[in-house]
Amino acid sequence: MAYEIATIPGDGIGPEVVDAALPLFEDAADAAGFSFETDRFDWGSERYVEEGAMMPDDGLDRLESYDSILLGAVGHPEVPDHVTLHGLLLPIRKGFDQGICKRPSVLFDGIESPLRGYEGGDIDFVVYRENTEGEYADVGGREHLGFDNDVAVQSGVFTRDATERIVRAAFDAAAEREGKVTSITKSNAQAHSMVFWDDIVEEIGEEYPDIEVERLLVDAASMDFIRRPEEFDVVVASNLFGDILTDIGAIVTGSMGLAPSANVNPDGEYPSMFEPVHGSAPDIVGKGVANPLATVLSGSMLFEHLGEQAAADALWDAVTDQVADPDAPRTPDLGGEAATEDVVADLRDRLSV
Amino acid sequence: MAYEIATIPGDGIGPEVVDAALPLFEDAADAAGFSFETDRFDWGSERYVEEGAMMPDDGLDRLESYDSILLGAVGHPEVPDHVTLHGLLLPIRKGFDQGICKRPSVLFDGIESPLRGYEGGDIDFVVYRENTEGEYADVGGREHLGFDNDVAVQSGVFTRDATERIVRAAFDAAAEREGKVTSITKSNAQAHSMVFWDDIVEEIGEEYPDIEVERLLVDAASMDFIRRPEEFDVVVASNLFGDILTDIGAIVTGSMGLAPSANVNPDGEYPSMFEPVHGSAPDIVGKGVANPLATVLSGSMLFEHLGEQAAADALWDAVTDQVADPDAPRTPDLGGEAATEDVVADLRDRLSV
Ligand SMILES: CC(C)[C@H](C(=O)O)[C@@H](O)C(=O)O
Ligand SMILES: CC(C)[C@H](C(=O)O)[C@@H](O)C(=O)O
Repeated sequence: MAYEIATIPGDGIGPEVVDAALPLFEDAADAAGFSFETDRFDWGSERYVEEGAMMPDDGLDRLESYDSILLGAVGHPEVPDHVTLHGLLLPIRKGFDQGICKRPSVLFDGIESPLRGYEGGDIDFVVYRENTEGEYADVGGREHLGFDNDVAVQSGVFTRDATERIVRAAFDAAAEREGKVTSITKSNAQAHSMVFWDDIVEEIGEEYPDIEVERLLVDAASMDFIRRPEEFDVVVASNLFGDILTDIGAIVTGSMGLAPSANVNPDGEYPSMFEPVHGSAPDIVGKGVANPLATVLSGSMLFEHLGEQAAADALWDAVTDQVADPDAPRTPDLGGEAATEDVVADLRDRLSV
Repeated sequence: MAYEIATIPGDGIGPEVVDAALPLFEDAADAAGFSFETDRFDWGSERYVEEGAMMPDDGLDRLESYDSILLGAVGHPEVPDHVTLHGLLLPIRKGFDQGICKRPSVLFDGIESPLRGYEGGDIDFVVYRENTEGEYADVGGREHLGFDNDVAVQSGVFTRDATERIVRAAFDAAAEREGKVTSITKSNAQAHSMVFWDDIVEEIGEEYPDIEVERLLVDAASMDFIRRPEEFDVVVASNLFGDILTDIGAIVTGSMGLAPSANVNPDGEYPSMFEPVHGSAPDIVGKGVANPLATVLSGSMLFEHLGEQAAADALWDAVTDQVADPDAPRTPDLGGEAATEDVVADLRDRLSV
């Protein structure tokens, strides 16, 4: 069986990490006894600069039949952020109803946390982030532009369907892990949306009597990700709070260069998308030193999603093994001097399915 | 001249830290040649439990004539957060148009940061947080409760007045400090409110050609407060983003127990309010070990606001001096075993105006 995977390398280091990782993904698939084909979509900010749009009008239609999407990065110094994001990344997440964004934060052996006293193995949690609505809803506007009473409104929209879905996914994940869900809100200041969220967490929680439920305000949670990250298991949060917390999670576990993510369409009607959490890193583009590990781990999540657990484990284990080895090549962001391709070549040697 | 100060000790450890700090404030005032009187308002969650409201209906009227307000903490395990906050803290901030929330993050000599490689003196920035509107606007609602199409909407409201005011305050502060303003947004996902914010930062920035302006997305800023906190000078943010970032700022500078704040009504029409950033800490109530330092530093900001710079400096310097002294008493949150009153007694000895 051959899977069809769409790749969108995107901007900046996106193409570097995607191109580097694909041969490794092929090794893993070969060894596990399946194959995949890729089609490359050169969409992104350069296309925007040339043609006025990040992707073609029928972009989603062209992606829809694929089994999965692998995205590199989007973001370009010369294109405003709200253009790059509203032109590609967010439409895919929303248009393919990828309601569940799964982002593991793992402090691997061999990786130094910026936090005193934390060693490899000490931190291992996963954030389930709502990914289609909430504070990212494109609802709002501006009135009285040019006058003193100039005012902008930005409305968060929270539906029962989407909220139930992410909360349930978090409880299901906790049942497979340590049995604890931490729900993040700001109910003390946002009583409309967040009390709604709390209600749904309480309802769904009743269906999972064995799962421990903790409720934290987003400001306290941001501290606690620094103060006691070892105590989290599954964290469930809205789109914005999940965005903020997963970046904190990436940093306390040593590097944005190691943080993968899955944007999952839960009922499988549309393709899911896998992408490193890091951005396009314009400062190091073209130098060949971008860290490919977050993309490799995202590939692992992609294979897992396709049900190819052996290949998924092989990729994850190769990364775990490499970063634990003090003699293995590392890119500059991890304190080494290796090139992207050295890191991937070393991973190919370590790969065992 | 005798100032009139209203104290609202509030819940949990609030009364402990306020009662402990007041005699020290009197010493500082005496030495600096002025005096103040206090009236104590026993408002808070206990009042809510007994009388159904955190403060009386005419609460704001009763506070209005004071020169300043000193608040301890609000929050109670048995009262929902949105009740405690919407019943007292947020109405004061909004009702007295305290549009400028100023929160310094300083890593004092003698205090250990949870971040590797940071020593006392390495971190020193201040966050200017919009404090009356934005994501905390009480605008929104819920529809179809009990049905499948149940939906909640929470709207952030950003006005030109309030936004200009906080941004201008940040630029003014930067002009007195290192000359750098970092503006926090999420323009890539919240194009209505945050592009409005960006526009205003750009406009005001033109009035301050010597101030360096940096723009950061809130997720990146949350990382950078951990990755490179030494590079910030003045940070300006919306109500919610300021809330999250100041908690991260408090933790990376060693303790919530050291983080003060000022809620300033800029035109002086209403009293300003000063409060420690920490909460009511129900777990240590009544043990006599609450850390009073954030309240003492808040008192310093109160005196500074009243124009009593000598007394303000005396309080700030006494804290700086104490935490730098390895033999000085410390409360358990700072790794010591001292009681609240020991810490204050030691500060009174150190006080010099
Ligand atoms: C680029 C941006 C729109 C995006 C987000 O906020 O979701 C990114 O920060 C992420 O976390 O994937
Ligand atoms: C208690 C809460 C409403 C408050 C806020 O969010 O402003 C607190 O976290 C703070 O930072 O002062």
